[in-house]
Amino acid sequence: MSAQAMAQWKKAQEGTLPEHMGFELISVEAGKLRAALQVQPHHLAPNGYLHAATVVLLADTTCGYGCMTHLPEGAESFTTIELKSNHLGTARDGRLECEATPVHRGRTTQVWDATVTAGGKTIALFRCTQMILWPKA
Amino acid sequence: MSAQAMAQWKKAQEGTLPEHMGFELISVEAGKLRAALQVQPHHLAPNGYLHAATVVLLADTTCGYGCMTHLPEGAESFTTIELKSNHLGTARDGRLECEATPVHRGRTTQVWDATVTAGGKTIALFRCTQMILWPKA
Amino acid sequence: MSAQAMAQWKKAQEGTLPEHMGFELISVEAGKLRAALQVQPHHLAPNGYLHAATVVLLADTTCGYGCMTHLPEGAESFTTIELKSNHLGTARDGRLECEATPVHRGRTTQVWDATVTAGGKTIALFRCTQMILWPKA
Amino acid sequence: MSAQAMAQWKKAQEGTLPEHMGFELISVEAGKLRAALQVQPHHLAPNGYLHAATVVLLADTTCGYGCMTHLPEGAESFTTIELKSNHLGTARDGRLECEATPVHRGRTTQVWDATVTAGGKTIALFRCTQMILWPKA
Repeated sequence: MSAQAMAQWKKAQEGTLPEHMGFELISVEAGKLRAALQVQPHHLAPNGYLHAATVVLLADTTCGYGCMTHLPEGAESFTTIELKSNHLGTARDGRLECEATPVHRGRTTQVWDATVTAGGKTIALFRCTQMILWPKA
Repeated sequence: MSAQAMAQWKKAQEGTLPEHMGFELISVEAGKLRAALQVQPHHLAPNGYLHAATVVLLADTTCGYGCMTHLPEGAESFTTIELKSNHLGTARDGRLECEATPVHRGRTTQVWDATVTAGGKTIALFRCTQMILWPKA
Repeated sequence: MSAQAMAQWKKAQEGTLPEHMGFELISVEAGKLRAALQVQPHHLAPNGYLHAATVVLLADTTCGYGCMTHLPEGAESFTTIELKSNHLGTARDGRLECEATPVHRGRTTQVWDATVTAGGKTIALFRCTQMILWPKA
Repeated sequence: MSAQAMAQWKKAQEGTLPEHMGFELISVEAGKLRAALQVQPHHLAPNGYLHAATVVLLADTTCGYGCMTHLPEGAESFTTIELKSNHLGTARDGRLECEATPVHRGRTTQVWDATVTAGGKTIALFRCTQMILWPKA
């Protein structure tokens, strides 16, 4: 992703949840996006470990940017209709990394997978279905 | 929930994600919790609609407080091992309300359901599995 | 459901998986379907307990008949795009009962919930998303 | 897998659902199992396409055999606590193939992924959580 494209992403997410949570888009390639998030105390649950919603924010945003950059020609946008995550580990600080990849790219729906790691260890597996929105005829 | 109990909850979530997101616990009864969240621009996705992670934050936190207040006697804590949400609608502003209820309360796991509404309309159905953590023998 | 309607259902599922598995449709009302399955040794896993797929067969078929009988006017059919079940208990024999209800009825998708019980005890919670198929323009 | 081991598997599933459905275990290696199922009319839904439960049977059985062959030392058995499938395509006949792999192998739970293909095309993605059962102390 060029510096210019990256600047556009940052601009587009100004004031929204990804910015509020410190979401960082790292790279966008055909079929693969990478993102990260630096864990802060305000990402944790009251028990001192990562809140599941922080992990979902990171994974779902990466998949959402993935869907936007992999829309079928002519499509307008998308909406997430369901998501599922399995939480395998956790963290208290450090850096979360996320990699997302499309596992289905249809005209009506896309399905994206994301893996979230902390210190190189997989802490969550995420999968979502996005409905493709087309311009009204 | 007494004013005192409510003050303790607020204190316990200081500086954590629920506070950072504006999560408000409304009531805790046996088998039912209610919570809310006032939608702000920083809860939205770049497309101007609610980010799925905001909905998950509201639902998962309510279920988490539910699990904590419904632990089997002697149990110490819990960890969410999987969660699933179906998104049926969205919002741009206003107030989200959430109601959570346990659908399984075992000694090893609990399963909680949450429904999220906006303006009285159901916008998401959430279900999660929590593993009960016991003191080390 | 009239005896005639019931006879039509039985006829329609002849030779298909629901018949092969002993699926019994009990009643179809607006917003609620009930079905059952008499547990046989060939419904079990090698460990002697219900196979998860037996439970899914019962729940998914009930929801599928539900979607077919609750299609929006003009729609042709549907296809299940995702399903999720939480297994809370099991059985070795006896009768499984299932109740299904729509939790979302849109023009593009429906979401149905089903509960499976054995001897009055809930053994599984099932939720699925069905995509509505419309005649080609 | 030796011919002898294969014969034992076939023996163990005699009279159970996998046999009733024509489940064929193909190979068991460390971290990967393969299985197949020849589509018959009794695997279909009344609409003439694969019933989702057939796909779940194939995927869940493969993951179950996977968990059994990858139990931590000393563990006794397992039970599936939740499963999720995304259905991306379908079939009316031919051969379904399934490949399963563990994505988490803990002492309390395992998470397995399975992919189901028909004619080389992915028709379903499946993920499940299994709880590990230990001998009573």
